[in-house]
Formats: sequence, C-alpha cells, structure tokens
Amino acid sequence: MKVIIVGGVAGGASCAARLRRLDENCEILMVERGPYVSYANCGLPYYVGGSIEKESDLLVATEATFREQFAIDCRTRCEVVGISSDEKTVDLKNHVTGEVTTEHYDKLVLSPGAAPIRPPLPGIDLPGIFSVRTVPDARHISEWLERGTTAPAGMDKYTGYQTVTKPQRAVIVGGGFIGVEMAENLVHRGLEVTLIERGSHVMPPLDPEMAKLVNGYMTRHGVRLELGDGVAEFKQAANGALEVVTGSGESHMADIVILAIGVRPETALAEMAGVEIGERRGFRVDEQMQTSNPDIYAVGDAVEVKDFITGEWTLVALAGPANRQGRIAADVIAGRDSRYRGTQGTSICQIFEAAIAQTGVSEKTLSRLGETDFEKIYLYPNSHAGYYPGAKMLAIKVLFRKSDGRLLGAQVLGEDGVAKRIDSFAMAIQMGCTIYDLEESELCYAPPFGSAKDPVNFAGFVVADILCDDMPITHWPDVGAGFLLDVRNPPELEVESVSGALNIPLPELRDRLDELPRDKEILVFCRSGQRAYYATRILNQKGFKARDVAGGMLSRSHTVSS
Amino acid sequence: MKVIIVGGVAGGASCAARLRRLDENCEILMVERGPYVSYANCGLPYYVGGSIEKESDLLVATEATFREQFAIDCRTRCEVVGISSDEKTVDLKNHVTGEVTTEHYDKLVLSPGAAPIRPPLPGIDLPGIFSVRTVPDARHISEWLERGTTAPAGMDKYTGYQTVTKPQRAVIVGGGFIGVEMAENLVHRGLEVTLIERGSHVMPPLDPEMAKLVNGYMTRHGVRLELGDGVAEFKQAANGALEVVTGSGESHMADIVILAIGVRPETALAEMAGVEIGERRGFRVDEQMQTSNPDIYAVGDAVEVKDFITGEWTLVALAGPANRQGRIAADVIAGRDSRYRGTQGTSICQIFEAAIAQTGVSEKTLSRLGETDFEKIYLYPNSHAGYYPGAKMLAIKVLFRKSDGRLLGAQVLGEDGVAKRIDSFAMAIQMGCTIYDLEESELCYAPPFGSAKDPVNFAGFVVADILCDDMPITHWPDVGAGFLLDVRNPPELEVESVSGALNIPLPELRDRLDELPRDKEILVFCRSGQRAYYATRILNQKGFKARDVAGGMLSRSHTVSS
Repeated sequence: MKVIIVGGVAGGASCAARLRRLDENCEILMVERGPYVSYANCGLPYYVGGSIEKESDLLVATEATFREQFAIDCRTRCEVVGISSDEKTVDLKNHVTGEVTTEHYDKLVLSPGAAPIRPPLPGIDLPGIFSVRTVPDARHISEWLERGTTAPAGMDKYTGYQTVTKPQRAVIVGGGFIGVEMAENLVHRGLEVTLIERGSHVMPPLDPEMAKLVNGYMTRHGVRLELGDGVAEFKQAANGALEVVTGSGESHMADIVILAIGVRPETALAEMAGVEIGERRGFRVDEQMQTSNPDIYAVGDAVEVKDFITGEWTLVALAGPANRQGRIAADVIAGRDSRYRGTQGTSICQIFEAAIAQTGVSEKTLSRLGETDFEKIYLYPNSHAGYYPGAKMLAIKVLFRKSDGRLLGAQVLGEDGVAKRIDSFAMAIQMGCTIYDLEESELCYAPPFGSAKDPVNFAGFVVADILCDDMPITHWPDVGAGFLLDVRNPPELEVESVSGALNIPLPELRDRLDELPRDKEILVFCRSGQRAYYATRILNQKGFKARDVAGGMLSRSHTVSS
Repeated sequence: MKVIIVGGVAGGASCAARLRRLDENCEILMVERGPYVSYANCGLPYYVGGSIEKESDLLVATEATFREQFAIDCRTRCEVVGISSDEKTVDLKNHVTGEVTTEHYDKLVLSPGAAPIRPPLPGIDLPGIFSVRTVPDARHISEWLERGTTAPAGMDKYTGYQTVTKPQRAVIVGGGFIGVEMAENLVHRGLEVTLIERGSHVMPPLDPEMAKLVNGYMTRHGVRLELGDGVAEFKQAANGALEVVTGSGESHMADIVILAIGVRPETALAEMAGVEIGERRGFRVDEQMQTSNPDIYAVGDAVEVKDFITGEWTLVALAGPANRQGRIAADVIAGRDSRYRGTQGTSICQIFEAAIAQTGVSEKTLSRLGETDFEKIYLYPNSHAGYYPGAKMLAIKVLFRKSDGRLLGAQVLGEDGVAKRIDSFAMAIQMGCTIYDLEESELCYAPPFGSAKDPVNFAGFVVADILCDDMPITHWPDVGAGFLLDVRNPPELEVESVSGALNIPLPELRDRLDELPRDKEILVFCRSGQRAYYATRILNQKGFKARDVAGGMLSRSHTVSS
C-alpha cells in the first residue's frame, strides 16, 4: 500500500508518524509545499517577539526525523499541482528543480491547512504588510523589524524610500488569536501597536462582555484598540511609511502592518481531487476523516468539523484537533475503527500577564441558533486560596442548559490558574457533565494551587442554586427600572455605586426588611454575587420576590454596554 | 427546628452557612472548642514559614461573620462535654467562664476533625515539641522560633536552660503532607531541617517510586531525609536542646521538633452520642452523612468515606471533601436529596519549586487489595510546548484497568502545570473515563500553557497502544536477565547507560535487525519511552518479540530500588 500525505505540519505529520507505527510495511510519501515540516506554527508570534530565540527552536521535527525514524519519504518545497482521483495519482512539483513528477497512491491524505485571509484591498501588496503563517513569514517580519537605522540613512533597499528610523509603529489588522498574540509580542519588541478589529470586540470566539475584559490588558500595555472599524486602504506615505486608512476614515501611520484577519481553508486540493466542499467552505469529511472519495482523507484546519455541542458544521483552526484528526486518518487507513468526536473549541491565549481561555459553546452561538434553553452565570473567584500570596481574581462565565443542567461552555480570564480551570471545564464538557457533577468534583487543593471549594465547584454550586430555584437571577442589561438593592458595606459604595439602588448591608438586612417593597421584584447585588445570594435567600424565604444580579458589581462594567 | 453543629472549621462551617441559606427560619448553634472558627488549617505551615504574614490572614470567617451574615449563634471556646441522644441534648462547656449548659437539638452535626497523633514516646511532652493543627499551634511554633538570641543570653524562660542561639535545627517527625510542607517552610525560615519518616518514603499516599522523586527536591534544599526509621525517644540535652533518638539508635539534635506523624479521627463525640464507629476508627456515615442515629450527622476528617475507586471504607483528611460533606449534611437536614459520591483522594503538595499531586487509587492500594486487573505507565512530557521558554519536565504515573481501560489513578510531579494535569485526571476519574476518552480530550493549548498533544492526551495514546497490544510493556524491576536494546543515540549513552544492553540507535534499527535475537524477548528502552515505542512497533511487525520498558531511562532511577 502506498499512502501520500499532502502537508507536513500538524495534521499531516501526525498522520504520517502514526501510520508508520501502525504499518511498518506501507510506503509513505509526505510532501510539504514550504521549506519545513512539523514546525511550531503556534510559536511564530513568540519568535517574532523574541521569547523564542532561535528559528531552529520552531522546528519540532525535520525531514531527517521522518526519513530516519519513520522511513518516510519526506519532501519539502514539493507542491501538489494536480490530482487524478480516477487514476489515483498526484502530480508533484519540486520547487527547487521545477520538475513535475506523477506518483500513484492507494490512499491520499490532504492536510493543506488554512491560509491567512488577504482581502483585495488597495495597497495590500505594499512592502511592510505581512501575514503570520509560516517560519519564513516570521523571519521576514523579524528582518523587517531589524532593518532601518536609528540615524538618518540612505535609501531603503526594500521600499526605495529614505529610511529614518527603525520600525516603531505597528498596525495589526484583526483581533483574533494571532492578532492579539502579535500585539503582545510587538509591544515586547518595543513597538507602538495599534490593533484594528472590524467586530465590536477582540477574540471573536468569545462572548463580547468577556472579550471586553481583554481590552484592559491590551490598553494597559499601550496597545491602541480601534474596534468596530475595518481597513479600507493601505497607502505608502512619502517617507516610506504605510498609511492604514479605515472604513471610518481614520488614518494610522505604520512602519509595519500585520494582517491577522483570520484564515480560510485551502481547498484548491479539494477541487483538484473533486471531493466535496461543505457549506462553510472546508473539506467535508465523515467522523473517520474520509472525504466524499473513500480513498481520500482530509484533516486539520482545512476540514469542516462538527461542533461538539451544537452538532453544526464549523471551521476551527486549532492544533490539538488537527493532530488528533491526523491520528484518526492513519488509524482508519490502517484498518482501525477510530472516530473523531467533534471539536469543543478549547483554546487559550496569553495576553501579557493574563490568559483568556474558553471551551464549548458561546452565548453568541447559542443565540445565533435561536437556542433559549440556556442560562449563564458570572463568577469572580480567587485563583487559589485568598490567604496565600499571589492569588488573582478570575473572571468566569459558565453557560449551561436550564432543562437538565448540562454544561455547555465556559470562558475564563485571569492572571493565574486559567489553563487549569478551562481544562477541568473542557474535560467536563467532553464527558457530558452536568452542573451537578461540577458541584461534586474533587479537584486538587493546597493553598498555592487552589481552594477547598475550587472555582469549578463554585460554578456548580451557583448553577445548582439557580436550577433548583434557590437563587433566581437576572443580568445587568435586563435590570431596567427594577428595584435595586445593594447589600454591600458603605465603604464599598464609596468606590463605585449604582444610582437609585437602596443600600442595606447584608448584616442589617434581617432587621430592615420593612424598608423593602413586597409588591415588586427586588434585584439584589453586591460585589461579586455571593452576599447578594445570601440576601436573596433571606428575602425569598421572608415572602419577598428577589433576584440576584449575576456577578454583582464585578460583572456590571463589562456586561453593560457603554 | 434547632440544629447544633459541633466544630466550626471546614465541614462544620460549610454546613452551618449552607443550612442557613436553605432555611432562614431554623435555629442554628455552632460551637467550636478552639478560639477560632473557619480558619485556614491548610495555611498553617505557610504562616510558620512566613509566606502568609499575618495570623489574621488565616481567619477566613469569624464569629461575627456567622452571627451577622448568617444569624447563627456561634460560640468559640465552647466544647461539647456530653451528648444525650435519647434526650437529644448536648452539654456545652464554656471554656472562658467554666460554665456548663445543656442545649436541646432536633438535628446534631458533628465535625470534630482529626487530631495529630502523639504517640506515648518518652519525652513527647518536652518543651519545643509541637503539632501543627490550630492557629495557636502555629503561633506557638513561630514564638518558639523567634525566642533565643543570637548572642549568649540568660536562662530561657521556657526550658530553664541557658540559651545560646536562636533555634537553628529542626527535626520533623513524619513525612506526610504536613511534614513535607513544614520542612519547606522551616528551610525558608533558615533552619537546618531533618525529616524522619518511619516508612520507606515520604508522602505515604503516593507510590514509592513517585515519592522517591520528591526526595531530590527536599535534599537539594538541604533537608536531611531519614527514611525507614522512627523516633524511639525524645531527650533534653544539657544545653536545652532536644535529642531525638530513633529506633535505629541514631541521635539527632534539635532546637525544635515538629510532630507530623498523621492524624486520627476525633471520636470522643461518637462515643458520647453512641453512634457507630467504623473499622477504620472514624464515624460511620451513609452517603447522606447520617450516622447510625438518624438525627445525628457527621462530616469532615472524623468520618470514614468510601474510596471512589475501590469502594473501601477509608480515612481521608482533605479540606475539599470536608466542605462538600458539610454542604450535603445541610442539604439533607433541609429535606433535600444530596449524596456524597465518595472520595478520590485528589491532593497536591508544594515541594519548594515543585509540586506533587495525585488522584484516584495508588498501585500500593491496588496491590494491597490483591487486584491484578491493572497496569501502569510512566511518562515524562514537557509541561508546555518545549520550544517555548520555561517548559519543565513532568513525571506522570497513570494506573488503568486492563480489561476495560478505565482510568484508576494518576500521580504527577513537576515544577509547572502539575495542578492543571491532576485536575484533568481528577475530572476524568470522577466521570468514569476510560483511557480512550483521554486520547480524545480537547485541552487548552498555546505555547505558554500546553502542547497540541497534552500530557493527558499522551497518557491516553500510550495506554491505548498497550491495550490494543501495539506496545507490550514491561517495567525495570521486571527486566531481570532479559535481552536489553537501547535505541538512544551514542552521546546519550555517555551520560548514563545500562550495562549489558545492546545499543542500536533508532535510525539504524531497520538496517541492523540481524543483530537481534529472534528466539527471545527484546526489551527496548530509550530516554523516555517514545523511541522505544517506535522501535517496538518496528520489531514486532518484523517478527520479533519486543516489549517497551515503560518510561525508559527516566523511569529507571526511581522505579528500581537501590
């Protein structure tokens, strides 16, 4: 059997190595268009930023690794220029020699990845505008950042314009993972960074109110955020700088522009092979990663996957799923019954000293689908025991199904312990946990690492209280002209207060019930929601109609649109 | 309804607060023998060590909190001196006034905790010998450490002996959580620390070969470990120092001794109340935390719990379970159907720059139960992507059932990302995951936080390979006189090699098969087990009988007893 694998990075490389382990005798040819196989795509921003020092650190495995350890015929700078699925052949162009050869396959695995979107804007091809996809991309960005001088100099070899200073101003177009990571890394390199995002918030997979919390970390580190505005045009100014003109007519001067608008599945190979493309414009595959042609498999960022929660076809460009899909394709080719379970979208992104992570479905997605059988909570627990130094506040949003308590999604932001919590939630979602399972989870605790009641347990407690109607809740955007009761202590109100809210500190509540209306709903809040919960319990047992405003004052500033 | 809760720390305090939230009208009396309620027991070693600076930081909630926020009659320095379960009364002694009063209850919740074991050794009551259970204990240790002078001085007010220097030498008796945490914290305070542990290793819940990895962290920081030796006697030397004489006849001089031999359920209340004590000498309760008397509940370190994996009755002194049990007792008293699912023993302990954590069952326990339907693996992955700075090697042991792949337990040690991995394993065990579920887990990945194939996934991959017989394994203690094949590269052998092993580097293996025997089993190893796995796959497909030595060279030094 001869298997040809097209694309030698995450999905393709995983498939090749796995297949060799399963079948020592099959012939494996892995071709990669670029100069490197198995490189650390996700490390590119950190290489630009300097925390990964050597380009060679990005190379997880080399052609030699594949040849020597796996007896795989591995060819770089080799591109598929034709596929005949009838003949079961591919035409391969060697970009070094220019030669085109034809190779037969029994099984073909396509792992072409997804390409950065480059909209056909005026000036998009000007020098100094970069995408971040490959090792050479990162190298070119680094070279560009190192060019120029700090004193007046001659003609720049790239632009033909006078260079005066080293690049100092960066404009990043797009606020997804790559855009946010590049912003951080360019700040680390000392650049002034402006990030332009067409949507209303950075990190589009997040819900807007959680993404809003990211803004603070960006702006505190000097990143200028231009949200709700897109690029209309790139121009070259007389001094060789780039001028980025936005849809709103703003103009931003830049010495370098990073395009991070998103990626789009590379489907040229699908067209060549005549295999089905799905509605989201990715390869359509079954749960065994098989395309519409039973001898052709596709894996990685180029394929559509089923959303683990909603069952929708979706595009998710993540390294973990790509690697698993590569393994599964290899398993199936080797005659094993492996199946892909769908993608949860578990992801994490460093934002300076913080991290933002998510897993499962967002409220945005549920709303888009017209789903109403869900509710959300916000909580702001410490990352570990508050009495041990270094505890940081986490901001957590949890989405769950009202009818049965099933956990649907979680978003976590903070400066400590984020990855730990999102992984617990991710594992819980994978196993179909309900919120009642989270109440009972036994997670690790010692003062430096957690709390006796972990934030994940707390999420369970809070939701269980809602589901059994111990704690009816509402949210700030829905408060309207309701009767607001603030149960914080007076010194807390001096920091920030809500106009029109009645203040009765929790310890006084039982004695001051006669100040409260019995004919209307009382919307109770405190700092984070805990004392408001206690107050809600008291009031509802005393015959009032009370609701807890989820997340208290801590959720107010980011859930109410300003 | 009147509920009396005895014990105001983790289990009792959780029960009291929860019960008030569920029932605004019941009368709740919470009594605590000591001076504080709801204090951070687990923080005591860090208060002694100075990383928690103020004693008040240890007080999570005070009597006032319970009175004001929860309308709970909360009394400290108040001890139960009698229980009449027929009359449904308790006799309470106020330790300030000496007065004894009798209070009626409808429901009684006992949360007395567990007391440090103080064996009746000669000299155990000498001044300078401390346990670490309460805030006053920690305060007394701190005071003792601060006494003395750095210059010659007069008579010591405690011992009556001449004091010459501040305490400099500590002996810790017992190598469990408290002993190990105290060792770290006393080193932080500048003491020379000797830790004496009667068992063959520190951290008794761990398996010995994993505990062995802890030793390095202790000794590198100057802790002298005396394993396999117990204390026979404490003596006071002429200069006021303590002499700790061990069973083997060794003598260790100390200026302070910490007893951390373990804890024992406080069952005096069980005897007073006439409720059942189990075979492990803890309160016997059902899954609703009810004792043999339906009006009496017991929670926390004093109760026996069902081991989540083995179903055995066991004693586990952990804060998380105590808190959950308190909630459950409150729920049940308030008429709700909550049930305790058993204890997994999820725990974590900081050891200087590292952490050791575990969840589920240990191999020790499985062996003690005569269980044979299990296997183990060792893996040594990076805590996050190796190409991003700061990645640290984790040492992971995973136990699983051979017949169905169910995850039974995990132990993780390392300097980064330990809590994250143990919590993923803990959640997986809670949900009855198999190893095949771990293969498919979608955990968070970005270079600073993880890897595209997380260590948890890797555990799944490796075990799945074992279970489907792709990779037969063996362990170092079982290799005996087997034929050993080392597939590392020659420079690696210069660092450390195994005598008698044949070296064929993996890349040369396919060409040198004729050097290998076809008539006996070939036991293959490399550094961590990955290349050995590749080699095992090649060999077994080529008609040899090969096994992978689990964990490679990295597992050798700690799994083979020296």
